[in-house]
Formats: sequence, structure tokens, C-alpha cells
Amino acid sequence: MKIFQTVGEVQSFSSSIQQSGLRLALIPTMGALHEGHLRLVDEAHRYAEKVMVSIFVNPTQFGPNEDFSRYPRTLEADLAALSERGVSGVFTPSVGEMYPPNDQTWVRVEGLDTHLCGPFRPGHFQGVTTVVARLFLACRPHVAVFGLKDAQQFLILRRMVRDLHFGIEMVGMATVREPDGLAMSSRNRYLNEVDRKKASVISKAVFLGRGLIAGGEQDPATVENAMREVMESAGGVSVQYAEVVDTEQLQRPVQLQPETDYLVAVAAYIGQTRLIDNQFVSVRNL
Amino acid sequence: MKIFQTVGEVQSFSSSIQQSGLRLALIPTMGALHEGHLRLVDEAHRYAEKVMVSIFVNPTQFGPNEDFSRYPRTLEADLAALSERGVSGVFTPSVGEMYPPNDQTWVRVEGLDTHLCGPFRPGHFQGVTTVVARLFLACRPHVAVFGLKDAQQFLILRRMVRDLHFGIEMVGMATVREPDGLAMSSRNRYLNEVDRKKASVISKAVFLGRGLIAGGEQDPATVENAMREVMESAGGVSVQYAEVVDTEQLQRPVQLQPETDYLVAVAAYIGQTRLIDNQFVSVRNL
Repeated sequence: MKIFQTVGEVQSFSSSIQQSGLRLALIPTMGALHEGHLRLVDEAHRYAEKVMVSIFVNPTQFGPNEDFSRYPRTLEADLAALSERGVSGVFTPSVGEMYPPNDQTWVRVEGLDTHLCGPFRPGHFQGVTTVVARLFLACRPHVAVFGLKDAQQFLILRRMVRDLHFGIEMVGMATVREPDGLAMSSRNRYLNEVDRKKASVISKAVFLGRGLIAGGEQDPATVENAMREVMESAGGVSVQYAEVVDTEQLQRPVQLQPETDYLVAVAAYIGQTRLIDNQFVSVRNL
Repeated sequence: MKIFQTVGEVQSFSSSIQQSGLRLALIPTMGALHEGHLRLVDEAHRYAEKVMVSIFVNPTQFGPNEDFSRYPRTLEADLAALSERGVSGVFTPSVGEMYPPNDQTWVRVEGLDTHLCGPFRPGHFQGVTTVVARLFLACRPHVAVFGLKDAQQFLILRRMVRDLHFGIEMVGMATVREPDGLAMSSRNRYLNEVDRKKASVISKAVFLGRGLIAGGEQDPATVENAMREVMESAGGVSVQYAEVVDTEQLQRPVQLQPETDYLVAVAAYIGQTRLIDNQFVSVRNL
């Protein structure tokens, strides 16, 4: 497994793969890898002969009061796990490598970032699209694999790839969960024992929301209130949003229609830790 | 010479060039080609075995009161001239091909677009960076060649390429001029005979500005006023700006320093036609 720290190195590596006619998959991560990430690696092997993982805690997607500085960094363990899973290359650039001096260039997908997490994390998705565009141009993969726990992120990135003609196949993989349903997340390690137990209400809420819609509920507010109540019933859980949106523009429908794709999504604080989760209802376009 | 109308076609063409180990140069244009464009083709042949030209009148870089609808379109003559100049491929996408339905993705280089033409053409440079990013991703060239008449555009695009890690060599070529000094431009055909004669004051102004700085003038306002006076002396010429800026951030210096690169740039209306011109002073970084 090769480790690259500069854009030049990783572009050379990618070129040599292209020239030998092999396909390359990229999994962009912020490190602190858990089993969910490693399953993305397994999935990526199904799409490409060579799998590359980037590990970069991207400052531009954190707000000033968010957890950039204390975000978990576990590089040594990450590299060991990736090597075991058959990864060919890991790209671990510095901030200065990804964002050169006087850097002034942004990539933004407008509109989709005004819903769900967008209003609560101003600038977050612009940071995500900007860094992923750079990672794509540095690593030049044929296919990129993402976890759908960050569903809004995936839909925004997929739109970016389509609009800008990146020519990269975008694969979204179902969220990997703990036995009690909690979506795996690097941020779960922030939870103390009591909060960790409470955290299962987050997934309970989205499964309930999905079930209500699958069962024919037509009023989005009914679904949203039910999800909110499940989370608030735990005590000490502060709900940021609980929403039903369409999967194209991420807008709240007035009334739910049959045979239509929806996303139920929630965000909540458990103590100081912000967690998100979601479920697609009748996923056909992913 | 092959002609491509879809992103898929041009990506296949580019892939086959990459796989055969040849270099590809791209010259993005809006058509209505003149000798200045054709010299870019000649230059491009020095950098790459295969030269591709895109012809796309990009709606997102025109303001609502600008000349998008009447911008000259001369596709047949353009193709004949390019074929004669040894071009391998021409990419002439439709607006719908470049901007798919529900398109919401923008690329923006902040800061550099707030100077010179920026304030007079809100959204213009965002349209330019957005379309050129797409053209680069569709055509995947090793090198791109631009005319320096659009100096601000070139500096912004070069920054974009660096910041996003496009890995494309950016070549800027000196402006090709008519015998009286007028910079060649597709918009020159808007000029009637009287205005065409007056138009030479635009280039006289920038050559004067360049000469004053080369001669040791330290006060940018003196240079700017001199350029403005030359243009206004013609009568019927309405100056939009006449400025001296640094070549890194495009900001007006308080005082001109020796051994420093500057750009003198002007924009003026001659009748209804807006023309621009510029000169670099001691170009070392281009």
C-alpha cells in the first residue's frame, strides 16, 4: 500500500493506473475509520481493480464553532486497517497541499445546500464540494464510493459530478449500523456511556418515519412530528430537525405521493454531540 | 477533423489520445474566430500533438443586458479555418449539453473577480470559471491556450486550475493586433466605419500606460489619468475603467514599485460596443 502526501504523487499514481487500463475507485474520508468506512472499501473492490482512500480532515467544511480541532485523528490505526483490506494507495495531504497560498476557488451546488443540515451548518456543503472536487482532480478515479449516512452530502456531490461533467461513477452505500441501530460515525466516540445508550433513538426515529411513509401516511408533518417525539422522549436529546424531503431538490412536499422517492432525515444533539441519520423510502434512483 | 456535440463523445476522444500517450491541447472559444484565435491554434501545436478547439457561446457569462443573443455565430467559416490549421477535434456542445436540467453547480474564484471588469459585469467571471471547468472536465487536455486580451480571465482561470488541482498547463499568448494596434476581437465586427477608426485609441491608451510605467512613473493615478485622457480625446468614447493593478491579486497599488509586475487595463464603449485591452509590464510570471 502506497502513501501519498502530494497532489503530484497521487496524480502520477493515478496516471499509471489509467495507462495500464485498470479502473480506480476513490473513497474520500476524514479518517478515524470505523467498520462503515471499511465496508466502503469492500464495495469499492467490486467496481475497480485498484482502490484508493483519501484521509483529510477538511477545515473548510467545519464552522467556526464546530469540532475541527478535536475531530478524532487515528492515522496509524487507519493505515493498518486499510492495508489489511487490500487498499492500493492512501492520499493524506496536508491542508497547505490541498489549499495553496492565496487560495480563492470554491465549488458550490446551489439550492440543495439550503435544506436539512444546510441552514444549521453555513458553508459546510460548499467546503465539502470544494474539497471533493479537488480530491477528484488529484486522484482521478473512475468511481467514487460514499456512505449514505451523509445522504445530503451524497446527493449534492452526485449533482456536482453530473453538472461539471466529472465522468465519475458515484456509488452510495447503505449505512452500516451498530447492533442497536445507531449509524456508525467517527463522532460516536464523543458519546459517554449514558449518551451512547440514548443515541439509539436517532435511528429509531428514521426507521419509524420510513415505516409511516411505507404504510401510506400522506402528511409529512405527521411523519416529522412522530420522528421528533421518539427522539425527545429519550430526554436530553435536542432535535435540530426531523424532515421528509424529496430526493431531487430536497424540498418538503405538501403531501406525500405514492410511487415517489423520499428521504427522511434527522439531526439531534445528544449532550454536546451532534448526530445525523436518515432513510430513503423506495430508493430507485440511487 | 472530428466534430463532437456531446460530452460523452469528446471524453472518449480524449481518452483514446491519453491511452496512445499523446498530449492534447484545448483552446476554449466562443467561435466567430479571427486571426487571434488561429494563432492560438498554431501555438497549441507547439505544446501538444493533438489540438482541440471548443466553440460554445456560454450564456452564463453574459449579463441580462449584454450581447448573448446577437453575439456573432459563424460556425461554418470557423470549422473551415480550424480544419486548415490542423485541428484534430472541435467540441460544439449545445447549452443543454453543458448545463443539464436542474443544473445548480458553480465554480468561483473569489476576490480576483471584484476588480477591473468584475464590478461592471456581475456574474461574468463566475460564468467563465464554471464553463471552463466543465470544458476541461469534458475534454481533459494536458494544456490549454488562451489569448491575453482577456488578461483578467486568464489570471482567474490560471488560479482556478492551480487551486482545484486540474493539472493542466495554462499558456497565455500575446494579443494579436490589427495594423493600427486594435486588439483583435470578435466584437470588433459590431463597429461601424467611423467607430472602427476611433477604436485605435484603446490600444494607444494601454501602450501609453505601459510606457509610462516602464519609464519610471510611480503614481498609478498619473498613469490612469493619462490613459483615460487619450481615450476621451477621440470623442464618443466612454471610458468604463482605466487602471493599473498588480498581477497577483489585481489590486491597485498605492505606489508603483520597480521590478514588480503590473497590468494596465482599460474598458471603453465606442458607440454601443464595449471593448477591452491591456498590457503587462515586465511579464515574468506568465
